[in-house]
Amino acid sequence: MNSPTERLVCAVMAGGSGTRFWPMSRRQRPKQLLALMSGETLLAETLARIESICPAERALVITAARLVDSVREQLPDLPASHVIGEPVARNTAPCFELAAILAQKICDDAIIALLPADHHIGAPAVFRQALTLACEQADKGHIVTLGVVPSRPETGYGYIELSDSVGVGTHRVERFVEKPDFEKALQYVRGGQHLWNAGVFVVRADVARQAVRRHLPALSDALEALADCSPMQLADGSLQQALNERFESCPSISVDYGVMEHEEQLYCVTLDAAWSDVGTWQSLLDHRNDSQSNYIRGDVLEIDCEGSVLVGEGVTVAALGLRDTAVVATEDAVLVMPVGRSQDVRAVVDALKDRKELL
Amino acid sequence: MNSPTERLVCAVMAGGSGTRFWPMSRRQRPKQLLALMSGETLLAETLARIESICPAERALVITAARLVDSVREQLPDLPASHVIGEPVARNTAPCFELAAILAQKICDDAIIALLPADHHIGAPAVFRQALTLACEQADKGHIVTLGVVPSRPETGYGYIELSDSVGVGTHRVERFVEKPDFEKALQYVRGGQHLWNAGVFVVRADVARQAVRRHLPALSDALEALADCSPMQLADGSLQQALNERFESCPSISVDYGVMEHEEQLYCVTLDAAWSDVGTWQSLLDHRNDSQSNYIRGDVLEIDCEGSVLVGEGVTVAALGLRDTAVVATEDAVLVMPVGRSQDVRAVVDALKDRKELL
Repeated sequence: MNSPTERLVCAVMAGGSGTRFWPMSRRQRPKQLLALMSGETLLAETLARIESICPAERALVITAARLVDSVREQLPDLPASHVIGEPVARNTAPCFELAAILAQKICDDAIIALLPADHHIGAPAVFRQALTLACEQADKGHIVTLGVVPSRPETGYGYIELSDSVGVGTHRVERFVEKPDFEKALQYVRGGQHLWNAGVFVVRADVARQAVRRHLPALSDALEALADCSPMQLADGSLQQALNERFESCPSISVDYGVMEHEEQLYCVTLDAAWSDVGTWQSLLDHRNDSQSNYIRGDVLEIDCEGSVLVGEGVTVAALGLRDTAVVATEDAVLVMPVGRSQDVRAVVDALKDRKELL
Repeated sequence: MNSPTERLVCAVMAGGSGTRFWPMSRRQRPKQLLALMSGETLLAETLARIESICPAERALVITAARLVDSVREQLPDLPASHVIGEPVARNTAPCFELAAILAQKICDDAIIALLPADHHIGAPAVFRQALTLACEQADKGHIVTLGVVPSRPETGYGYIELSDSVGVGTHRVERFVEKPDFEKALQYVRGGQHLWNAGVFVVRADVARQAVRRHLPALSDALEALADCSPMQLADGSLQQALNERFESCPSISVDYGVMEHEEQLYCVTLDAAWSDVGTWQSLLDHRNDSQSNYIRGDVLEIDCEGSVLVGEGVTVAALGLRDTAVVATEDAVLVMPVGRSQDVRAVVDALKDRKELL
């Protein structure tokens, strides 16, 4: 039998429709399809990051149906049939089950890694080490999550509380903790027993499907017909056909709530790889790229600015004397705000709801 | 003989190539061709303001050759031959002489009013009253300037120091005063003896030409050939031809320095008509048009902004939580700065000098 990483099938979840990067992100081009950190999109970065341990023939991208064409265009090396479109949004649990079903068609005794498509990782080699470690634990039948070493008392993430160590960089999970208040978050960072839940799960495909059967039998039933499809049917597109017919009947629930929180035996592998969820325009200041602490991208003339996010895409941005300001300009829309108000971009998008051409 | 205002020929100087309204103003569309204050351009506003006392057949626009077509398009009611193009820039004294020469072809015993094309006047009727008063003084052979009642200790303008009163709202001019320092400007505002020089001159055409002959004989000589043209030659374009051949040989000097400062007998009519030279983006805050003291123009979504200048032209601007910030977005360029740095737009334009397509 092949080694655990040789049986690794990575399922990249690329269905997000995030609005927090408006006006760059749009319905037809959500965050994972933006090149925010390099010349590559976050999605392409995600695939490139794992390629040396999980080549394209063992990678899957599960995305929204409307994005399938864009994703395939982005990832010419990936077999077209490995880009699966969800006809409706049903949160992450159905995606988890689907990933397990598809992985079994790609590889006997597959181990799946469920990976978000829209994160950035500054140290990809460290990430691959953690993933390899997680595969080894998963091969023993455990469900493994990656936990990010927190760098600040973040109140916007869920945390994983660790129990005893079971080997290098690996712990049992005591419990998942919801987004804490600042006081709690500060304790977590100082205590060293809490890691950020990065939304990465590694598990044997058969173990995954058993867990779903235990906790979400309706989901198992809904996608049972797909499990009966042959590997050929993945390649020839008839599996996508079956998915289109069945997916709407899946319960809409996250894999965290629907499956993981009910599992007793979870493991967590520590990830210390300069991870970022690239959550808002402000988060890009963690990746500032000039000597005045600005994040600058595209066609920007910067004069005397500091701590600002300046993006010109298809249009020239001239920024003069700005402090802590975000300017994001595209060909049809421009957003300007104090960078500290990045969480409020949603209010802008909501206000534009009658102008579909801008969303 | 007709009354003075019936012999008034208004010559609108529309040659400015101002960069202070970049990115809205461009080489081919300077400030006077922008609709900053209403649905009309500042140039069209200027003509509309005088129309009831100086109809189109007695109005002239003297502009840069490259802008002639745009100006004619803007002003369909003006005879095309009344839009004159200066083949090269030679400051305002040649324009003054040219206006006098052309006025004599339009009207016997013409009185000319030299008017900047890029100012805004909030009370046009009051302006027309002042102009009428100035015409009456000019008809007596005086050179008359309009002086704006200062509303603040502005250090960016020249001032007119008044001498004794010679009638309602009319004084002799003691002298022109260069841009003062703040202390001096404060004294001027409080003292009531100093008015802003608005760059408007009213004078009989023959008096104007005599003054030029006295102080700038080289200019008289340079344009002598145009004086010899017949009125028909203004209409048929051959005067423009003669201008193209002669204009380059004109000395480049302002009418203020070249003529007015050497004249002993100047008169000043007081103008208190909500005048604005619309000098910078910041100056538009004097014309703020919403309840949070913002100046908003075009396609702008404003959320929680104050004291800001927000302009979206051919592109949607979303402004969130801004204070005292200017955002000016066009289809190919966006400027963002603290509104107090409006004087520094020139630095931006200078930095873009190698990108002619943006200027």
